[in-house]
Amino acid sequence: MSTPARASAALKARVRRPTMLNKVCHPEEMLHHFPNGAYIGWSGFTGVGYPKKIPTFLADHVEKNNLQGKLRYSLFVGASSGAETENRWAGLKMIERRSPHQVGKAISKGINNGEINFFDKHLSMFPVDLVYGFYTRDRPNKNIDVVVVEATDILEDGSIVPGASVGATPELVQMADKPYLIMGVEDRIGRTSIPVDPEKVVGIIESDYPDATSPNTPADAKSEAIAGHLIEFLEHEVAHGRLPKSLLPLQSGIGNVANAIIGGLNKSNFSNLKVWTEVIQDTFLDLFDSGKLDFATATSIRFSPEAFTRFYDNWEKYHNKLLLRSQQVSNSPEIIRRLGVIGMNTPVEVDIYAHANSTCVMGSRMLNGLGGSADFLRSAKYSIMHTPSTRPSKTDPDGVSCIVPMCTHVDQTEHDLDVVVTENGLADVRGLSPRERARVIINKCAHPEYQPILNAYLDKAEYECLRKGMGHEPHLLFNSFDMHKALQEQGSMKKVKSW
Amino acid sequence: MSTPARASAALKARVRRPTMLNKVCHPEEMLHHFPNGAYIGWSGFTGVGYPKKIPTFLADHVEKNNLQGKLRYSLFVGASSGAETENRWAGLKMIERRSPHQVGKAISKGINNGEINFFDKHLSMFPVDLVYGFYTRDRPNKNIDVVVVEATDILEDGSIVPGASVGATPELVQMADKPYLIMGVEDRIGRTSIPVDPEKVVGIIESDYPDATSPNTPADAKSEAIAGHLIEFLEHEVAHGRLPKSLLPLQSGIGNVANAIIGGLNKSNFSNLKVWTEVIQDTFLDLFDSGKLDFATATSIRFSPEAFTRFYDNWEKYHNKLLLRSQQVSNSPEIIRRLGVIGMNTPVEVDIYAHANSTCVMGSRMLNGLGGSADFLRSAKYSIMHTPSTRPSKTDPDGVSCIVPMCTHVDQTEHDLDVVVTENGLADVRGLSPRERARVIINKCAHPEYQPILNAYLDKAEYECLRKGMGHEPHLLFNSFDMHKALQEQGSMKKVKSW
Repeated sequence: MSTPARASAALKARVRRPTMLNKVCHPEEMLHHFPNGAYIGWSGFTGVGYPKKIPTFLADHVEKNNLQGKLRYSLFVGASSGAETENRWAGLKMIERRSPHQVGKAISKGINNGEINFFDKHLSMFPVDLVYGFYTRDRPNKNIDVVVVEATDILEDGSIVPGASVGATPELVQMADKPYLIMGVEDRIGRTSIPVDPEKVVGIIESDYPDATSPNTPADAKSEAIAGHLIEFLEHEVAHGRLPKSLLPLQSGIGNVANAIIGGLNKSNFSNLKVWTEVIQDTFLDLFDSGKLDFATATSIRFSPEAFTRFYDNWEKYHNKLLLRSQQVSNSPEIIRRLGVIGMNTPVEVDIYAHANSTCVMGSRMLNGLGGSADFLRSAKYSIMHTPSTRPSKTDPDGVSCIVPMCTHVDQTEHDLDVVVTENGLADVRGLSPRERARVIINKCAHPEYQPILNAYLDKAEYECLRKGMGHEPHLLFNSFDMHKALQEQGSMKKVKSW
Repeated sequence: MSTPARASAALKARVRRPTMLNKVCHPEEMLHHFPNGAYIGWSGFTGVGYPKKIPTFLADHVEKNNLQGKLRYSLFVGASSGAETENRWAGLKMIERRSPHQVGKAISKGINNGEINFFDKHLSMFPVDLVYGFYTRDRPNKNIDVVVVEATDILEDGSIVPGASVGATPELVQMADKPYLIMGVEDRIGRTSIPVDPEKVVGIIESDYPDATSPNTPADAKSEAIAGHLIEFLEHEVAHGRLPKSLLPLQSGIGNVANAIIGGLNKSNFSNLKVWTEVIQDTFLDLFDSGKLDFATATSIRFSPEAFTRFYDNWEKYHNKLLLRSQQVSNSPEIIRRLGVIGMNTPVEVDIYAHANSTCVMGSRMLNGLGGSADFLRSAKYSIMHTPSTRPSKTDPDGVSCIVPMCTHVDQTEHDLDVVVTENGLADVRGLSPRERARVIINKCAHPEYQPILNAYLDKAEYECLRKGMGHEPHLLFNSFDMHKALQEQGSMKKVKSW
């Protein structure tokens, strides 16, 4: 074991329990805790607050000693960590199993070529089921072996203060199972550090590596049109008394559409907004600055490097308006339902009956995982899917319609979604039967070039199914993926033959 | 308006607010409250506690005056009502729109031939969204027009005591939106009667029609084999400390498999069981009598006529062990998650990746609706789907495999299910990646004749998808419904050609 002398002054100031200083050490001293086959937990969520020194050291170790495929781990992190860690591990064949989310080209490749066993779980449910012992039931110790936590502070009682994300760290460190007495976005429950038995801490590594976040994705014309339709819809709901002028707590995903919506809110007449979401992004700082946003809570702050600087430079202005929670709480269906959250997410594709695919392209190729999409959309008061009406294929700028006859994989069901919106328009499908829903979604949301194709599918499906007395949700079952077939074989969904 | 003299002594004893007796009347006096196009709410859930006199009168009225298709209503009931009411209405073309559930041949036919607009919603979510005004947003009065409630008592304050079901009646009668401070199965919240403004009551009809329930479905050899596997699994979980010996609150559906499971529990070593479910059936009485069951709560008691007699004859023995709640509470995802419910339901089909279809045969033909299946399976601690491995087609006793390559409609996603069980065996898929899951489901659950067919599908799908780097959840997308095609064209899924 190492000596306190190895801790820098900065580290000493943050490790407030003197005996813990005895555990300060170098990564190589930790190597024996990471045998091949180990089950490992990391802190982190959406690419912030993840450990860097130990994963980097282990990756270097594998690379230097040609251990690719010989040191393989089961890796559990709240959501995604950084490209230089889990993605590099995947490239070095160090990941045997992963849950509940992931981001990175190499890890995605490993999952889709069969090297990595990935299981994709609701982010709110993963920590609970982990603590139940569901995922470690076949292990000799019925547990995970070691957890690596990036901390910003260690308190006198040995408890850990996390950094820019909380995620599943409390559950990875120990068991936690309580009801949530949260009645408002600002309500605080629990504690500000993660309790841990100091005897179980095997080592403390000093780290000065920053989170490797990327720049913010700017809004484009399509995403601004989507945001415009959504703001208009929210204004309509306020005008009819179904929403207050401060709206209800907002959940918003990641990406340019989400950014355009927050930008649109900034220019709107709404005020005293609140945010209940899983990840806070750059644009929220603008919303704080304009005075429109009163409070925001999430499980992670994923700013671009510039926004992190802006945030810390104006700490006094922001710190009382922001609160991070564990992902079991930020994504809790119970609280999302109680608060009446307005949930907004982007899918891979939506079908004419309002099912949505959030994960698997062409039914098989995993992108990043379900994330919190179903946590929010299943329980939100307003469940909204926003997407451009098309995406480019290799040969056609509108070769992929995001509105399809049948989703090739279903993550959100027709029983969950209230609103579908594209740059073409907004379909409010609340209380509509499937055939009514289909017409509204096609005519409001689909790209003009795909509207006749989709209406022709629906016409024929209605004709065929109604005459057989099976027309509740009409499908040409054996042709329902023909648009996907045309894309695969001819480069564009437009080239689908007549139905 | 009618006079008190028209009320029988029995009715007078139950209407404890004297001014309400002035409202006692005959159904024909209520006719003007039911104009064509009206939005109507009924009490009732799973075929008990639904109104009978008024719906029967209105059906007679339509029949006598040849008004088929000229008196059409939008009908909202917690779940299903009785065959002599909603199903007869459907046969008389009296239903324009229906939500969130339905049972009956004529109504199912109307939905599937396009006459009835049915929208299928989570039972816990329907009453809340109704109160939000989501389903009446395009109506001039922004509301439903009239609600018919079957009551067992009217109290001094005018409030209504419901009978064998609560369902969505409180929300149909008025707004109700509170958090649920329920921490145990026995906890009581709220009140025992439904408040209503007496001024809004347009009439009281005396009714002596009983609920038209059917006899209990007995267990058969297949359902007993399924129950056997499930009991063994639960014993295993107890042995490994993941469940207490009293298990956790049980949710159980309707039908012979559900009955076999309750029968199996009766013969098991578990004790002090509790039930948190949506509907209580005959077999629970046996479980009370054997002393194994301590308490049961639901939103409806759907006994066979014999069991209703047994229940009322032994009222003193049972009444303190049973509690009915509104469906918004019985099916609340929040409480289901908090209590750690063991959820068990029967699907139309399950696919090899553990998605399940609960509603639409061949993707299109609606059976009864989602019901509470997703309320429970999304949030339960143990989410269990039980099904026979096959069902008969017209020409083959095993012509329909309930394990298929891809579900033709998805109501429960792979992110929700923990266990799939058939008479062949039990697949525990917790923490497994999709390809691992598929092998376990095929080899444990599929019928022996379908195992080679499904394994051949998976082999080829893995080969094709993995080499293209899209093998997270391998599918032969354009052949994924070939077993359904073989069923439709050749009468049995076995006749699928080579993949």
